Amino acid sequence: YEAHRDVSGRIAAVYHSVAQLVGARSDQIALLESATAAWQKAFTAIHHSRPFSSGDRILVSSSEYASNVLPIMQLAKSRGVRLEFIPDDEHGCVDVTAFANLLGDDVAAVVINHCPSQNGLINDVAAIGAALHAADSSAWYLVDACQSIGQLPVAAGEIGADFISATGRKYLRGPRGTGFLYASDRAIAELEPFPLDLHSATWQPDGFDVARGAVKFESWEKSYAAILGLGAAIDYALSCDIEALSTRIACLSQHARTGLDAISQVTVRDRGLSKSGIVTFTHGRIEAQTLVSLIREANINVSLSTPDYARVDFDSRAIAAVVRVSPHAYNTTAELDSLLE
Amino acid sequence: YEAHRDVSGRIAAVYHSVAQLVGARSDQIALLESATAAWQKAFTAIHHSRPFSSGDRILVSSSEYASNVLPIMQLAKSRGVRLEFIPDDEHGCVDVTAFANLLGDDVAAVVINHCPSQNGLINDVAAIGAALHAADSSAWYLVDACQSIGQLPVAAGEIGADFISATGRKYLRGPRGTGFLYASDRAIAELEPFPLDLHSATWQPDGFDVARGAVKFESWEKSYAAILGLGAAIDYALSCDIEALSTRIACLSQHARTGLDAISQVTVRDRGLSKSGIVTFTHGRIEAQTLVSLIREANINVSLSTPDYARVDFDSRAIAAVVRVSPHAYNTTAELDSLLE
Repeated sequence: YEAHRDVSGRIAAVYHSVAQLVGARSDQIALLESATAAWQKAFTAIHHSRPFSSGDRILVSSSEYASNVLPIMQLAKSRGVRLEFIPDDEHGCVDVTAFANLLGDDVAAVVINHCPSQNGLINDVAAIGAALHAADSSAWYLVDACQSIGQLPVAAGEIGADFISATGRKYLRGPRGTGFLYASDRAIAELEPFPLDLHSATWQPDGFDVARGAVKFESWEKSYAAILGLGAAIDYALSCDIEALSTRIACLSQHARTGLDAISQVTVRDRGLSKSGIVTFTHGRIEAQTLVSLIREANINVSLSTPDYARVDFDSRAIAAVVRVSPHAYNTTAELDSLLE
Repeated sequence: YEAHRDVSGRIAAVYHSVAQLVGARSDQIALLESATAAWQKAFTAIHHSRPFSSGDRILVSSSEYASNVLPIMQLAKSRGVRLEFIPDDEHGCVDVTAFANLLGDDVAAVVINHCPSQNGLINDVAAIGAALHAADSSAWYLVDACQSIGQLPVAAGEIGADFISATGRKYLRGPRGTGFLYASDRAIAELEPFPLDLHSATWQPDGFDVARGAVKFESWEKSYAAILGLGAAIDYALSCDIEALSTRIACLSQHARTGLDAISQVTVRDRGLSKSGIVTFTHGRIEAQTLVSLIREANINVSLSTPDYARVDFDSRAIAAVVRVSPHAYNTTAELDSLLE
């Protein structure tokens, strides 16, 4: 308690840093234990405030992360909610025209990732938000910015989402066990999170008062030390300038893709017209898991992505697994050349 | 990912440490971000698997922590669930006979704290479990062991609870941002947590599989560094012997209570026949907040507890706030004498 009190000013400053990062007010920011915790806080608040029921449709991007789909599958099973994957355009991104045509009064929520973790595409989350606005839809719009935050500009005002969830530990390079949630004024005004705790609400003699602002989406118990780490990471990213980071990462990832494309048997698996820093590939003769191990032996850290992370994206392309390379701005073309070698 | 992989053996060992601490199997243990997260995982799993509905009764100890009551108040408001506080016995603990008389088929859950944070009482959680068993009740039994874990023996087999939630950061002296959940075999077999993620479930081509064991109550994203800290703290406590810690803490807290009682205007506010290491008091002329500040000026760390933490306990005794002293085994009688001075 004493340590927490001593750094209360620094903790408050983290809200301002996140707000600056996403172009929002600090009272629209909740600090959570992870991006998954943030997304779940949003989703369960919607479900508690106006329970999803039979016939409600939830529209989801085809490259969506498993943890953002499984809860909808649970509600499909238990409550008859309809989980619908939005068609892709010719580049593999959310087809915004097709999406607009799917909208109707029965669409209760829209779940989109900005950049998936297993595929270099960038979804046009601002165009999706504009389509929702144009259709005068009341659907709750949830954007997962896990892979975009820290590498691409993420502007809440342009996206028009009700919720943007993100992690501290990917391109922001903050500690694991941190995440945040941006909430729109509509979400803050209309939704009651569930379950509340003594931070998000106050037990009064005659009931309870829910906290004002996005703090209502938080829990009291969390690692405040990790939150200071998140703040430091965001301040560092802001001092580098997100646009500059973005340009650098795009150059490096393009260097990787060009080099990988030139290798016999290697297929770059990224979709999208413009691409994120996530570079994925397969090899015609060597399984992805084996490749990851071989590359690790050269002291190069790459990841394996498998279908259970994003079932629709993998199965629709009949891919068993991909190797993921995710260069950051501090990487060098020489390092990528070592990988290619 | 690489750091996580390098310590996978040490992470696995933490489950064994927690299991040893509470007398359970390691597949009955889930590691969570906090005790609140652990309690909420249990409560929301019950609510998803068999939704609480109008007329369902939830029985709660009168000294219960706000964060374990607010979600029930939410369901009382939204679904007509009946929140009932169990009468106290003459010592202020859960009256086990009165509790047994409250049981019936409409009791869906029982929510008890082992030791509250604002009152030195110890509830007889084993007797409550035995009463549930004797009544052949199917109510889910949730025990909050936040204040008892690390200072008192907490034996899952003797308590007979479906869930025991606890924090790492109190008497265990682990890092903030850690907690755990013990789940009974019945809870593991019958409950589906909500929302699932890609750790607690696997997205299959034709649906999803929920993980086996208490891991189903976990989230993938959390601070694995903090979990290693939790493991180290538990191993340290086990090496000290919980019985030895318990005896030492009881001696110190008794020393504090005796000394406080002897001071004019001071009233010790703890209830219970046997008492925990939580020592609470008020002063006839000086408000608790002021006392906390004055004591801090002497470089002694004590806490303030207020009614919003445990509304029923405070309001039934017409107490506005208490000062909390919580000596651990490493404290000395000389330090407590400084406090008394």
